[in-house]
Amino acid sequence: MYGPGDVRVEHRPDPAIEQPTDAIIRLSATCVCGSDLWPYRGHDQLDGPAPMGHEYVGIVEEIGSAVRTVKPGDFVIGSFFASDNTCEICQAGYQSRCVHAELMGAIGTQSELARVPLADGTLVATGGMPEADLIPSFLAASDVLGTGWFAAVAAAAGPGKTVAVVGDGAVGLLGVLAAKQLGAERIIAMSRHEPRQQLALEYGATDIVTERGDAGVARIKELTNGYGAHSVIEAVGTQEAMMQAIRATRPGGHVGYVGVAHEVALPGDELFFSGVHLHGGPAPVRQYLPTLIDLVSRRVIDPGKVFDLTLPLADAAKAYEAMDQRQAIKALLQP
Amino acid sequence: MYGPGDVRVEHRPDPAIEQPTDAIIRLSATCVCGSDLWPYRGHDQLDGPAPMGHEYVGIVEEIGSAVRTVKPGDFVIGSFFASDNTCEICQAGYQSRCVHAELMGAIGTQSELARVPLADGTLVATGGMPEADLIPSFLAASDVLGTGWFAAVAAAAGPGKTVAVVGDGAVGLLGVLAAKQLGAERIIAMSRHEPRQQLALEYGATDIVTERGDAGVARIKELTNGYGAHSVIEAVGTQEAMMQAIRATRPGGHVGYVGVAHEVALPGDELFFSGVHLHGGPAPVRQYLPTLIDLVSRRVIDPGKVFDLTLPLADAAKAYEAMDQRQAIKALLQP
Repeated sequence: MYGPGDVRVEHRPDPAIEQPTDAIIRLSATCVCGSDLWPYRGHDQLDGPAPMGHEYVGIVEEIGSAVRTVKPGDFVIGSFFASDNTCEICQAGYQSRCVHAELMGAIGTQSELARVPLADGTLVATGGMPEADLIPSFLAASDVLGTGWFAAVAAAAGPGKTVAVVGDGAVGLLGVLAAKQLGAERIIAMSRHEPRQQLALEYGATDIVTERGDAGVARIKELTNGYGAHSVIEAVGTQEAMMQAIRATRPGGHVGYVGVAHEVALPGDELFFSGVHLHGGPAPVRQYLPTLIDLVSRRVIDPGKVFDLTLPLADAAKAYEAMDQRQAIKALLQP
Repeated sequence: MYGPGDVRVEHRPDPAIEQPTDAIIRLSATCVCGSDLWPYRGHDQLDGPAPMGHEYVGIVEEIGSAVRTVKPGDFVIGSFFASDNTCEICQAGYQSRCVHAELMGAIGTQSELARVPLADGTLVATGGMPEADLIPSFLAASDVLGTGWFAAVAAAAGPGKTVAVVGDGAVGLLGVLAAKQLGAERIIAMSRHEPRQQLALEYGATDIVTERGDAGVARIKELTNGYGAHSVIEAVGTQEAMMQAIRATRPGGHVGYVGVAHEVALPGDELFFSGVHLHGGPAPVRQYLPTLIDLVSRRVIDPGKVFDLTLPLADAAKAYEAMDQRQAIKALLQP
């Protein structure tokens, strides 16, 4: 990405092993993330041309001398944060904040090859080569599914709970799927886009709310005897979405927020009197990969459906444009 | 309170039963809360002369026709929010946000008699008349102990955890006590006041940190292998204290905040990347009263020690002044 709206596909030198803990993977599929749109839209500053992409599945091509758990030929998935998976923070399940975390987005995975640091901690092999139609679902596990899953866990979605989801992008939709898998009784998707509503219903939503902001909050309260939802997933990252999520949650309920916060300031007094639990941030996707790989492999879930556009990597610019224009929920790129 | 710094003790008409669910209690003891200092210091707007106080223990004098669980002569404790204890929010343990909640502070308990709404839901009888020396500890349960306890629970204090406490007022000190009771392994009290440090140590603190702000955060990190504390209790309510609490918590850790937020705005991006759990607000003290009454009755805990000044109710103005000047941690008033 050279600047806002300016995405180019270029030949760059092949990545090489830099540390003995690195692996090089050949990407089977990659994609464009909602968060990639922040710099694309000029909302995030970009320093010069930058490699893009942080979602990836592929085949291990080469490993550093210290790598033990994956080998060339393995089909692997990793998260958007490389992590050692051994430090105290990782062991507590917060691999996205590993003391040695490295942001894959700074390396870039919208490419044919990519270097993955801390390969033993970061990569999980699926075991064998997946059937081709499962690749989009495995790719989803790399970020949007893992992020939606974390949001649902952070929102304490579970049996007997009413879960509301703010945001109908891929993460919000997969938050619906995760809430369903976690056993939520009722799932309210907030969306005014018909194809996204359809996918939300398919993923387990029981109600659709088209109102936003205060009207959306009022509607959630109406649907929950005036109490508000037990659990609210925030998957946008704006002030409006955060306040909508907090206000739609009953006192003592849980907000799981995973939209990357942009110019958000939470008013302390309102938060104080809301009595909600607030948890979120960059999802520790690595924690959930074994579970997600299992669910995808057994075809229990089909998160790959969020990819409603598939393009060759060479057409990455078109993929960004389609997502920016909301013509696509999420675009898969084939290297 | 007539205005900032202007506290007067006056004769007012005796309270009467207004609703069949009301009780009238004769106060055995009451006290001044840190939150009473906000209007005293002019930080909160006050509409004309207002009755003050929301902490209370006493003997039931009269009950409304619908009251079933307490009777005249019972020694009772209630929280600063009257609550029905039956609605879904109460049943989930958030009585301070009961759909019928009434703020005791608006009624005022720095008095000889007080009306307690929703007596069945609000009041808990201790069973028999307590020994005189236990009265301060029972009084503490009405707010500061219950609030410190909630903060420790919200911060997920427990076995194996390192808990840091921001704020050395009565709530912070009782947060230390609560963390100890909940089994925390290490408790770091942040205080630069010698008598408060002493009480913190007596209540179970294992370390004292005198630094504040960024230096305080750095010290907590030093004491925790660079990770930050698992659990941080915030018991102040200022921007500095909230940021200190968030920054002193490791990713995936828990902040329990109970200081009433004043002009606090939490930066969304920093909160997002902190990866902490944030929970707090007005403590649902009612939830903990049976446990706290049991611990006090059996003399397992001695929260009454936070009262380092006892005055007759007639000297309420002196009590406010002493707390405002930090000459007293907390002042007990004897009606």
